[in-house]
Amino acid sequence: MKDKLTLIIFSDNLDRALAAFNLATGAASMGIDVSMFFTFWGLNILRKKKEISKSKNFIKRIFKKINRGGADRLKLSKFHMFGIGTFLMKNFMKELNIPSIKEMISLAKNLGINIIACNTTMEIMGLKKEDLISEVDEIAGVATYLSKAKDSRINLFI
Amino acid sequence: MKDKLTLIIFSDNLDRALAAFNLATGAASMGIDVSMFFTFWGLNILRKKKEISKSKNFIKRIFKKINRGGADRLKLSKFHMFGIGTFLMKNFMKELNIPSIKEMISLAKNLGINIIACNTTMEIMGLKKEDLISEVDEIAGVATYLSKAKDSRINLFI
Amino acid sequence: MKDKLTLIIFSDNLDRALAAFNLATGAASMGIDVSMFFTFWGLNILRKKKEISKSKNFIKRIFKKINRGGADRLKLSKFHMFGIGTFLMKNFMKELNIPSIKEMISLAKNLGINIIACNTTMEIMGLKKEDLISEVDEIAGVATYLSKAKDSRINLFI
Repeated sequence: MKDKLTLIIFSDNLDRALAAFNLATGAASMGIDVSMFFTFWGLNILRKKKEISKSKNFIKRIFKKINRGGADRLKLSKFHMFGIGTFLMKNFMKELNIPSIKEMISLAKNLGINIIACNTTMEIMGLKKEDLISEVDEIAGVATYLSKAKDSRINLFI
Repeated sequence: MKDKLTLIIFSDNLDRALAAFNLATGAASMGIDVSMFFTFWGLNILRKKKEISKSKNFIKRIFKKINRGGADRLKLSKFHMFGIGTFLMKNFMKELNIPSIKEMISLAKNLGINIIACNTTMEIMGLKKEDLISEVDEIAGVATYLSKAKDSRINLFI
Repeated sequence: MKDKLTLIIFSDNLDRALAAFNLATGAASMGIDVSMFFTFWGLNILRKKKEISKSKNFIKRIFKKINRGGADRLKLSKFHMFGIGTFLMKNFMKELNIPSIKEMISLAKNLGINIIACNTTMEIMGLKKEDLISEVDEIAGVATYLSKAKDSRINLFI
């Protein structure tokens, strides 16, 4: 049986996203079968920078403007400091040739990593399929996650 | 062997609690054996809204007033915005007929999910059994958790 | 086969560090083989209080001064309150004879727990081997973690 890894990405912090993609791409390049399940704030990583769908609900429309998506909008969970800390971290990464989250998503895709968006979160946040980047393989729920996790040697909630 | 899932609920954020109970109730309704281990801030989810026991330690009494418990007092980890964001999130959930955390605790109970409160946390926080809601099955420590997790296919720290 | 536990310690909050070391030392004393992998902010737990190496990069030098290390500098993720909450928590722990994080590191070491520092984080943060406490067994990357996690019954991301 092939080794499997599942990751639930709950957070949209730059640091946690980095950890998740490092684990995922590292595992995939070792031949491990990887599924990444993006839920709650984590779904923001998979959103297009510019919203496509318009929610009928006025409040939801406002909330979508505040809770913005886009892989290059992620902030550090600590020392964001109005953008200075996050800017520095991105520079430290660039100097070391560590790819950005956007590049890591492409890399993940090329390595055959399964990218899943949580359907409940999409309903709560008022998001539609067209609001997500094209790298998303599947929109699915907790049952899909659990059936994958049951057969995986490593399951992490990030 | 029956599939098993254990969850450590460390946080008392509304969003993480939601993720935990979604996973737990989803798994239980698929026939998976679920244990939820509430520790540290996560224990606040299992506290009665009104404290019953009185700590002899004055400082601990103050701390219990600041670090308040109750499943309907949970806040979002992001965009709480003095209650506005959390209020909106609860409304988004209600519109979609997603149960509240309080209702999810009852649902978990009905599905036979094992609800465990961490004994070390209770000592640290100065809490007694009578401060916790009746849905709690067991007050136990790390050894109990580990013996369950050892036999589980999925173990997550939320 | 001996039971194994791996922990990724991503955070440098006092509360999460406590949870991690409680799980780790609890497991080790039950005869479980434990590996703790410290990454990102979590690496701060393994740093000497006084920096030894000097980065040539001026910005990195500043960042190291802001993002300070040392096991006794950890703060609560909630109710830090300019140090008051963290101070109180440490006192609650002392009253119950719960060891400090510094003591827990020694205890972990005595119990044979494997303490691993993430090499990518060290590069990003501009840290050298001499900046870390002597309890660190190994500086390694994601491949080392994954090969351990594949053979472990319990894997948690804290």
